[in-house]
Amino acid sequence: MNHSATKPTDSAAKPSIGEYLIQRLQDYGIADVFGIPGDYVLSFYTMLEEGPLNTIGCTREDCAGFAADAYARVNGMGALCVTYCVGGLSVCNSIAGAYAEKSPVVMITGSPGLRERIHNPLLHHMVRNFRTQYDVFEKLCVAGAELNDPLTAFREIDRVLAACERYKRPVYLEIPRDMVHVRPEGAPPYEQPVALSNQGALAEAVEEAAKRIDAAERPVFLLGVEVHRFGLQDTVLQLAESANIPLAATMLGKGVVAETHPLYMGLYEGALGPEAVTEYVESSDCVVMLGTFMTDINLGIYTAKLDVSDCVYATSEELRIRHHHYHDVRLEDFLAGLAKRGLSQHSPVPTELTDWRKEPFQLNAEAEITISRMIDRLDEQLEGDTIVVADIGDALFASTELTTRGQTEFLSPAYYTSMGFSVPAALGAQVARPEARVIAIVGDGAFQMTGMELSSIVRHHMPVIAIVLNNSGYGTERLLHPGEYEFNQIHSWQYDQLPEVLRGGTGYEIHTEGDFDRALRAAWEDKSGPSILHVHLDPQDCSKALDRLGKMMRETVTQGK
Amino acid sequence: MNHSATKPTDSAAKPSIGEYLIQRLQDYGIADVFGIPGDYVLSFYTMLEEGPLNTIGCTREDCAGFAADAYARVNGMGALCVTYCVGGLSVCNSIAGAYAEKSPVVMITGSPGLRERIHNPLLHHMVRNFRTQYDVFEKLCVAGAELNDPLTAFREIDRVLAACERYKRPVYLEIPRDMVHVRPEGAPPYEQPVALSNQGALAEAVEEAAKRIDAAERPVFLLGVEVHRFGLQDTVLQLAESANIPLAATMLGKGVVAETHPLYMGLYEGALGPEAVTEYVESSDCVVMLGTFMTDINLGIYTAKLDVSDCVYATSEELRIRHHHYHDVRLEDFLAGLAKRGLSQHSPVPTELTDWRKEPFQLNAEAEITISRMIDRLDEQLEGDTIVVADIGDALFASTELTTRGQTEFLSPAYYTSMGFSVPAALGAQVARPEARVIAIVGDGAFQMTGMELSSIVRHHMPVIAIVLNNSGYGTERLLHPGEYEFNQIHSWQYDQLPEVLRGGTGYEIHTEGDFDRALRAAWEDKSGPSILHVHLDPQDCSKALDRLGKMMRETVTQGK
Repeated sequence: MNHSATKPTDSAAKPSIGEYLIQRLQDYGIADVFGIPGDYVLSFYTMLEEGPLNTIGCTREDCAGFAADAYARVNGMGALCVTYCVGGLSVCNSIAGAYAEKSPVVMITGSPGLRERIHNPLLHHMVRNFRTQYDVFEKLCVAGAELNDPLTAFREIDRVLAACERYKRPVYLEIPRDMVHVRPEGAPPYEQPVALSNQGALAEAVEEAAKRIDAAERPVFLLGVEVHRFGLQDTVLQLAESANIPLAATMLGKGVVAETHPLYMGLYEGALGPEAVTEYVESSDCVVMLGTFMTDINLGIYTAKLDVSDCVYATSEELRIRHHHYHDVRLEDFLAGLAKRGLSQHSPVPTELTDWRKEPFQLNAEAEITISRMIDRLDEQLEGDTIVVADIGDALFASTELTTRGQTEFLSPAYYTSMGFSVPAALGAQVARPEARVIAIVGDGAFQMTGMELSSIVRHHMPVIAIVLNNSGYGTERLLHPGEYEFNQIHSWQYDQLPEVLRGGTGYEIHTEGDFDRALRAAWEDKSGPSILHVHLDPQDCSKALDRLGKMMRETVTQGK
Repeated sequence: MNHSATKPTDSAAKPSIGEYLIQRLQDYGIADVFGIPGDYVLSFYTMLEEGPLNTIGCTREDCAGFAADAYARVNGMGALCVTYCVGGLSVCNSIAGAYAEKSPVVMITGSPGLRERIHNPLLHHMVRNFRTQYDVFEKLCVAGAELNDPLTAFREIDRVLAACERYKRPVYLEIPRDMVHVRPEGAPPYEQPVALSNQGALAEAVEEAAKRIDAAERPVFLLGVEVHRFGLQDTVLQLAESANIPLAATMLGKGVVAETHPLYMGLYEGALGPEAVTEYVESSDCVVMLGTFMTDINLGIYTAKLDVSDCVYATSEELRIRHHHYHDVRLEDFLAGLAKRGLSQHSPVPTELTDWRKEPFQLNAEAEITISRMIDRLDEQLEGDTIVVADIGDALFASTELTTRGQTEFLSPAYYTSMGFSVPAALGAQVARPEARVIAIVGDGAFQMTGMELSSIVRHHMPVIAIVLNNSGYGTERLLHPGEYEFNQIHSWQYDQLPEVLRGGTGYEIHTEGDFDRALRAAWEDKSGPSILHVHLDPQDCSKALDRLGKMMRETVTQGK
């Protein structure tokens, strides 16, 4: 993400509004745009296809949104392009997820031409008035603009894209279709206001935090997803290594640092997570939370016993040490300040905490496959350049046991928890990193929502491995709310037959550990297209983490009854 | 729709908020609710499943929205129930379509319990704050309420449901999960304010309109969808028959009256429609537009040559005669007034205009199937109790040639034009009218968006016939914007293989007229589950209406270039 400062090049001396936008997207490192065309955006879409950016058509707009989100998480920024209302209002949920989990996605949409709007006619795709879509996305984006004035269009594009990069949240750009080819005359340049840290506050905060850490017996860093979003992994690792301070991560931050790092202990999830990590973190006399969202899921559905009043809590939005708050201190400056000052060495971390090295997997070929055993087997297969995308439910909870290595990325909507993220996100991740091995782990309910986006994966011959966990129902809900409710049943598909419909890819039907082992080996060798591993699970089977979660949440979902 | 006045029964003397809502939904004639459960709505969902309403699970929330919309169009009112944000924000587009096309849909959603919100924690599924979802739906619904106060909850439910029925637009009801089982004490009853017509304005308007119609040489009624929404078909037919005035309908109003009625001429779509109808309507000296939306699509993308200044224009929102407007005159009162006063007899309609009786279809079994020939063949098959659901694109334009008979309903998002409506809408229509034959006509692009909702149709063994028009691309866009653009290409699926994946239904692959004829006959006999007719079309094939549309719109979509 060293592209933010890049100024628009001079090559196109007098670009049109559409051309300028395409140029600026490239300046931010965006090479691919996901979407679906439609008449109000056809003009810009044509410009996209004829220009230097790569356009990736999706089957549904919300899938384009999820793909752009995953692309942004891997690449630093992502974009999608859809038509007015019928397209735009179909991505509300994807954009909301990007907002909640801080993924910098640029949503571009067409709209009726300004000249068509005279006398306020009822144009197709219109809901209430011409502003409805903008009004909706104002609630779901950190910045937005309707590019309806040539004099300000370039400034507005610059302002909105700068906000996307700075806040790591989605932004909204709407182009009336008769503005795409307009070439503004003498548009005044945009000067991005630079928000600097208050130097006095910064110095004081760094010194106080450093002293607390230095004085602590057993400090620990608890890492959140912002460390990844703001590209601070190296700074954090350097700090931890220099002072010999162990690391844990939240669920949303899983994979922020390679989980094979000697200082890494595991995921901290309150009562839901591994006991050794929970105990270590909760008994620490100085927990330093870096880029961590204090969400219910991250805090183990509030089973965390963290005394926040005793923590250092630093995010892009807030810096707090014990009970007092510092304002105007940027996360990156705070970490750089700590690194510059230096921390004193701590005593070595207890070795039993770094036991990420598991026992080798012993295949029991005839045994019925369970989710825990499947994850154990998969864990052995992971390589350095793998991207694991976990969908919601036990796909996520079980996957937290996987070990991210080297360049492994772990993507999941672990806070917003929107089902159906993983398959379109696998598409986005694969586009962002064509050489990586991308694995989507997805429950049957989530797969039925967006799994047909495999169509685009087949079309582009991408070797995505989709592992579909079929327990014929909404498994998490069964645990939260036991009983024979029909609404928790899902009509079972023959997922392994999808290659016949999609005219590509390979399907595997899996009942036993041996089936899974063979399918995974075959899929790993096969780079010709996607593999669909249809894993039959017992409806009552679940990971330990989900089992613990279910016990704790049951009371909440039916409260008051 | 004679249920509006029904007051809550006394059977549940002191119902909980959830129970009261269920009772009131039934009072409005709702027997089925579409949706997907999720933790914030599990409590109410359980109450639904255990109560008298039938719950229909869908694969995706937007499909539940489309199904509820179609159910509402057939039944008079419809409902869906989804969870907070990840569920709710996934139905924005469906609800927007219901708003634009006046379909009375009740959207019910759960949300975090009020007790969970103290200290403003970051609960999962949350976007910006607890109000975000409400804020979004405020833009997309005609009324809404968050049921967070026992004292007003019943009144709010009553007020919101009354608005849904009166305005025929979607409404929003949000139940925090800890309010579902709360039993309000002494909730004050809600008195629905009755909006009566201004009697002076009504009398004056009726008299002026009647005089203009009586004085005209060739008056014509142009019928819109509101005639159906407000249940005014009988009044309109009685008026037309008594005065011998011919009828035409707009595209959105297709099927409002049976197209076999002797006074019915056909669809009026400006330059896009049949010439005889266009000529008759445009040369009429008194066009009476009843419940007609003046949308671009209804007006043949503004090719209509209707002098509105010379029309009588009556809708639920506006009453205008020539250039002057009447306020506070309800559509139903206006029509009742006209009927009561009576219109004078007009000379018989030219017989050549009532030529709905087509030539018998002559099968050319070896010929490659075209969309026009397919529609001609299908038209012969339609029976009285058929519901045709046409998706967007040539599925719609070609289907306008079908003849609705007797109880036939023709459903289509002909104004909002959101792709992917038809398959989930077929589910909704079939639930609303189990005895009807439901046919969905859908292009490949639209099918790839929501066609997998066939899963629910298989699950419930519904004999829906889905006709998938496969031309490997976005056909309408190809016509609007010719050229070899990759973004108009769609990866082709083997749609007829879907029964293997869905574990039910029957697939047919169709290349020739003979193939189609055989498949349609077999599908018509087969009541065991859905039939999928995969019709291969030449990418350049299109109906006459679409061809005319393409020629006229090409300039607009790339304007300014």
